[in-house]
Amino acid sequence: MRHDGRQPDELRPITIQRQYTHSSPGSVLIRGGDTLVLCTASVDEDVPPWKKNMENPTGWVTAEYSMLPGSTSPRKRRERNKIDGRSSEIQRLIGRSLRAVVDMAVLGPRTITVDCDVIQADGGTRTLSITGGFVALVDAVASITGEGASTVPPVFTASVAAVSLGHVNGELLLDLNYAEDSGAEVDMNIVMTGPNDDLPGEYIEVQGTAEGRTFSHEQLNEQLSLAETGIARLTELQQEALGDVWPL
Amino acid sequence: MRHDGRQPDELRPITIQRQYTHSSPGSVLIRGGDTLVLCTASVDEDVPPWKKNMENPTGWVTAEYSMLPGSTSPRKRRERNKIDGRSSEIQRLIGRSLRAVVDMAVLGPRTITVDCDVIQADGGTRTLSITGGFVALVDAVASITGEGASTVPPVFTASVAAVSLGHVNGELLLDLNYAEDSGAEVDMNIVMTGPNDDLPGEYIEVQGTAEGRTFSHEQLNEQLSLAETGIARLTELQQEALGDVWPL
Amino acid sequence: MRHDGRQPDELRPITIQRQYTHSSPGSVLIRGGDTLVLCTASVDEDVPPWKKNMENPTGWVTAEYSMLPGSTSPRKRRERNKIDGRSSEIQRLIGRSLRAVVDMAVLGPRTITVDCDVIQADGGTRTLSITGGFVALVDAVASITGEGASTVPPVFTASVAAVSLGHVNGELLLDLNYAEDSGAEVDMNIVMTGPNDDLPGEYIEVQGTAEGRTFSHEQLNEQLSLAETGIARLTELQQEALGDVWPL
Amino acid sequence: MRHDGRQPDELRPITIQRQYTHSSPGSVLIRGGDTLVLCTASVDEDVPPWKKNMENPTGWVTAEYSMLPGSTSPRKRRERNKIDGRSSEIQRLIGRSLRAVVDMAVLGPRTITVDCDVIQADGGTRTLSITGGFVALVDAVASITGEGASTVPPVFTASVAAVSLGHVNGELLLDLNYAEDSGAEVDMNIVMTGPNDDLPGEYIEVQGTAEGRTFSHEQLNEQLSLAETGIARLTELQQEALGDVWPL
Amino acid sequence: MRHDGRQPDELRPITIQRQYTHSSPGSVLIRGGDTLVLCTASVDEDVPPWKKNMENPTGWVTAEYSMLPGSTSPRKRRERNKIDGRSSEIQRLIGRSLRAVVDMAVLGPRTITVDCDVIQADGGTRTLSITGGFVALVDAVASITGEGASTVPPVFTASVAAVSLGHVNGELLLDLNYAEDSGAEVDMNIVMTGPNDDLPGEYIEVQGTAEGRTFSHEQLNEQLSLAETGIARLTELQQEALGDVWPL
Amino acid sequence: MRHDGRQPDELRPITIQRQYTHSSPGSVLIRGGDTLVLCTASVDEDVPPWKKNMENPTGWVTAEYSMLPGSTSPRKRRERNKIDGRSSEIQRLIGRSLRAVVDMAVLGPRTITVDCDVIQADGGTRTLSITGGFVALVDAVASITGEGASTVPPVFTASVAAVSLGHVNGELLLDLNYAEDSGAEVDMNIVMTGPNDDLPGEYIEVQGTAEGRTFSHEQLNEQLSLAETGIARLTELQQEALGDVWPL
Repeated sequence: MRHDGRQPDELRPITIQRQYTHSSPGSVLIRGGDTLVLCTASVDEDVPPWKKNMENPTGWVTAEYSMLPGSTSPRKRRERNKIDGRSSEIQRLIGRSLRAVVDMAVLGPRTITVDCDVIQADGGTRTLSITGGFVALVDAVASITGEGASTVPPVFTASVAAVSLGHVNGELLLDLNYAEDSGAEVDMNIVMTGPNDDLPGEYIEVQGTAEGRTFSHEQLNEQLSLAETGIARLTELQQEALGDVWPL
Repeated sequence: MRHDGRQPDELRPITIQRQYTHSSPGSVLIRGGDTLVLCTASVDEDVPPWKKNMENPTGWVTAEYSMLPGSTSPRKRRERNKIDGRSSEIQRLIGRSLRAVVDMAVLGPRTITVDCDVIQADGGTRTLSITGGFVALVDAVASITGEGASTVPPVFTASVAAVSLGHVNGELLLDLNYAEDSGAEVDMNIVMTGPNDDLPGEYIEVQGTAEGRTFSHEQLNEQLSLAETGIARLTELQQEALGDVWPL
Repeated sequence: MRHDGRQPDELRPITIQRQYTHSSPGSVLIRGGDTLVLCTASVDEDVPPWKKNMENPTGWVTAEYSMLPGSTSPRKRRERNKIDGRSSEIQRLIGRSLRAVVDMAVLGPRTITVDCDVIQADGGTRTLSITGGFVALVDAVASITGEGASTVPPVFTASVAAVSLGHVNGELLLDLNYAEDSGAEVDMNIVMTGPNDDLPGEYIEVQGTAEGRTFSHEQLNEQLSLAETGIARLTELQQEALGDVWPL
Repeated sequence: MRHDGRQPDELRPITIQRQYTHSSPGSVLIRGGDTLVLCTASVDEDVPPWKKNMENPTGWVTAEYSMLPGSTSPRKRRERNKIDGRSSEIQRLIGRSLRAVVDMAVLGPRTITVDCDVIQADGGTRTLSITGGFVALVDAVASITGEGASTVPPVFTASVAAVSLGHVNGELLLDLNYAEDSGAEVDMNIVMTGPNDDLPGEYIEVQGTAEGRTFSHEQLNEQLSLAETGIARLTELQQEALGDVWPL
Repeated sequence: MRHDGRQPDELRPITIQRQYTHSSPGSVLIRGGDTLVLCTASVDEDVPPWKKNMENPTGWVTAEYSMLPGSTSPRKRRERNKIDGRSSEIQRLIGRSLRAVVDMAVLGPRTITVDCDVIQADGGTRTLSITGGFVALVDAVASITGEGASTVPPVFTASVAAVSLGHVNGELLLDLNYAEDSGAEVDMNIVMTGPNDDLPGEYIEVQGTAEGRTFSHEQLNEQLSLAETGIARLTELQQEALGDVWPL
Repeated sequence: MRHDGRQPDELRPITIQRQYTHSSPGSVLIRGGDTLVLCTASVDEDVPPWKKNMENPTGWVTAEYSMLPGSTSPRKRRERNKIDGRSSEIQRLIGRSLRAVVDMAVLGPRTITVDCDVIQADGGTRTLSITGGFVALVDAVASITGEGASTVPPVFTASVAAVSLGHVNGELLLDLNYAEDSGAEVDMNIVMTGPNDDLPGEYIEVQGTAEGRTFSHEQLNEQLSLAETGIARLTELQQEALGDVWPL
């Protein structure tokens, strides 16, 4: 049993609140235990400069990630002079993960930016950003009207969710909170497509890091199986939140 | 009657939610109409470098202000390379306003940073930041324990709140939303202490700006009277939110 | 009587020297007591990027403010990596104040930049920047020839000047020098149009800040009356300096 | 058969030249096909600021990664204003990978910086940086003399090497060059300890990314097996280069 | 005869005004033709960080150079984000030139910063900065009182002045103004100590640059002779300005 | 005799290796004693923004200079936030020197960037950068094909090389290494065109700096003669390296 009473393979309570604000077409407040992330998705009817010269420029999806200063104790210094390496790495991961399930040609010549701002940080901020960011992205795509607008499904090839896990004191745990994460010997973040019918989801990103030790092929396999369980549950929660908008 | 049905001298519906997150000792989500600001207050048991060499360094209160990219449409570019002039000016105002009611010697050698992050922007973000930031600051002061801890009141000499107003199409309106503000000929932000007994509050900051016209001495006096009404109501709302913590 | 022998309602000796340099069409060295500011105004036959896409782009007036390192003791660090918050706030104020009296449509699609560089700082740098910057701006406008050139008056709707005042040791003083300003309990900067015929000028900006205390409605009224006196005298000095160029 | 004549499971020709320069105690020029990386390791008899306040500060190993402008065509813009996200992410990976095999307490209160500067880039720059950086790190550790100096082995718990692989046109290939990498559907970087006796190495980092598709659990397993083959060969090459210095 | 009526070997009219401001102990406004530079010298009773750990830290003299935006037409963009290469190069030259005549041990553990701010630029800004900066430096040294104070001469080993010259349309001219300088085929800046008794001054810096052509050994010799003439005259002007303070 | 056994007028052993990498059309590894610089030259079929509006834009040659962190001991901090003044000054010198021998009209509307990255620094990095950079530039020009391509010679008006020299302990030495350079009283860098037939080369840049002393006209003449010897030898080495490509 874990400090917060969870089983090793149990996610924290997750809530996904859509349309949290009205200033962005996609606006999702996702909570996982004490971690709270606001994911907003904005549509810009333009493409990045490096796509401008293409003959038929396709669309683009990008992400930014930041932690509010008050999201952690002691207070995190605001990234006003330069983005720190960790934020940069995380927002690149979020962007790649979301792009993996979007058909850019169907999206058309526009850019969607998914901003993930961490309001409270207790572990798992990058995986919740992907899981919630996908829901905000769906809403933003659904908001596109006029020329080139498309019903949601054809833009997406699948849904995407992410989960963390790790070895803590020799035990394999799903969805680590901060206390667990800071003591983890192995730390893993898995991004997968949602399972469909009876087919399991497939991998988009697998990132495993040993801190102060190493891990074997066998352990890796256990980790991957546990991740699948978590992704399946997260996909259900995304589906529930999206309701009719997401018809897979 | 205004677009949203308000009387000229009527505030938008205001809600003040304390302890919105647990990661900071002060954490207030303040909503005024469609404007939503998260004010967190963090305590650092240290003083700024320029106070270090003082013999008996007193405390310090400072503020930072930022708009989340998704708080406005079109999306606001993230201030990652440099803080823009407007944000810098606003956070200096917030800091001055909060410091005006704090006795730094009673606070003792520690720094409290009040972060005001705008989640949704529909006008009045700086005044709500001050009004909500004060409540977060009270909670942060109340959280201080150990040597030099003090019950809340002696640290504060008064409460503080802020309100905007302006001339729109020749009419004087209280608490402008974005649509009103962007069409205002005169734009005013007033920071005052809360009224006490039957004495009206006093001014901490008076900032009036004419956009494309000017205003007379008489008009200024009307504006100041209207502001007093707004500040009185905001002070009541702060008192309700703080309950027993604030015994004035 | 004040340290420098002035009456409470007396300005410091002010001199306004036009055409101090030849490298800019407007170049004014303004001195107020020991404060010395060089205001140069440059004309660029282009509009800012955000005006480029307008159908009939109107003109623009902007300002930059900086203190030379040797203008103060101890030496002020040069703003080479980033502009500090105070400079940013002051230059925004100067820009707004000058724009308030310019008809941008008459100015035509060009940008005038007014640079205010403080050579010696002894209080009142922002108000002298506005007062001297206006004179430099008039000269710059007068220098415009060719298509769209206009005699000076139609571009301007009024003259503009600025003055500071404050409560020092309980007494209300006009045009504070540094020693007075650093001990002021209330600090006020007023920007007004010049009086015309027997009509008093009107307000463009009112900025009052209490440092460590507050001020009442009555006190504010006294302050505003004192400011009017100062603005009237500054307007005369601007008129004398401009001579025939300014025909109001 | 691949464009350059290799088998799918074959590394490019690798050469590891130690003591390429004399200005750093560790200086390794590693070549893998047309990719050429200079890895230098410098010892600073100090610890990072955040370790300074520890009672018995242990050592630290960090890495920086950069591509020379001429290492690629078209020329890569020099990172002089800010480090780009990709470089930041890669140097964090290199640092983590090297730290995973160092016992910081044995290293003692000093910092070793491993600089990986890419002289020519043809794919695999991050994996060669780790593989060559380890050799430079061993030489830097061996150069430490005086108090707290240690023979090499106790500082290291294992050797470390890294290899890339990917699915290109549906085929699984080891050690991708740039042409292969830019067309890869799945791209994987594996960091492992060297095999010891008959035990296979263990994982330090597993990073798999799908570009425009996904990959299944089965495919992941094939990828991991192929990586093991590459790591074993790279470990032999490191051992040959280090000769007597590395006595595992 | 030159455009402005000068002989080829004639300096522009030079004026050196000491104590132009009171905010710095050294404050010199130097004018050469239409070029106008304010040189202020500030004393800081501290040494740079890299001298802090020396047992008996000696003094330091450093310089900063900047052009005001209005000093040139079109307006020069303010160096607020980063110093440009030209300014950096010039201020390094000024610093080296002034340090060449100062005995840092006699100066004692303090730093003097000489700020050269160009108010109007018409060629020769770097040489006037050195020539005027020396005078400001002498005044700053003379202002030092208390422990370690010294009469001026022992701190200085000589005086220093600088002059420019160049080949324009095949003719060798002294002290180029902007129009001459921008058409010069060879551009030279010479920094020398002042002549003493009947001994000519010696070189501190010789910088000759060919623009679009080259120059021969013979031409170089002519240039050096011409420079000596200019330096001798500038040294007289410095002596006149300094009066009793400079007793060489 | 010098520490390394050289005569006072003797260069260090110089080697010039062309086509060191394949990623740039010009790629030269130049070694002078223990100093090692990689000079790569890249061709961009575009001109700088400030040439874009010319009617017949001519070409441009620019240079960048940087020291790798491991090129010196202690390690040099990477210039990632801003370029330091010394690097900026050196790369401006390299650029000017190379441009002096290029006919920009013949080069045509393209930009060649010569990157000089110091791999090991033992004095003379800027002069070797110019000497090696010229060879890389020749190869880059030779690589240009298609419209506007030209055989090498017409683009160049001469060859260019550079050498350092200085007074060390009162003796005049050619081509200083770091130990000599850091103790030099006078430090000189001379850039010249290569001698042609029996005509000596001419000067492009002459930069002489006295550190803590001064130098006389006579000494300057000795220095210039010694430089000529060095340049003549360097020109031979460039010719040998270039072989048939350089037909002067």
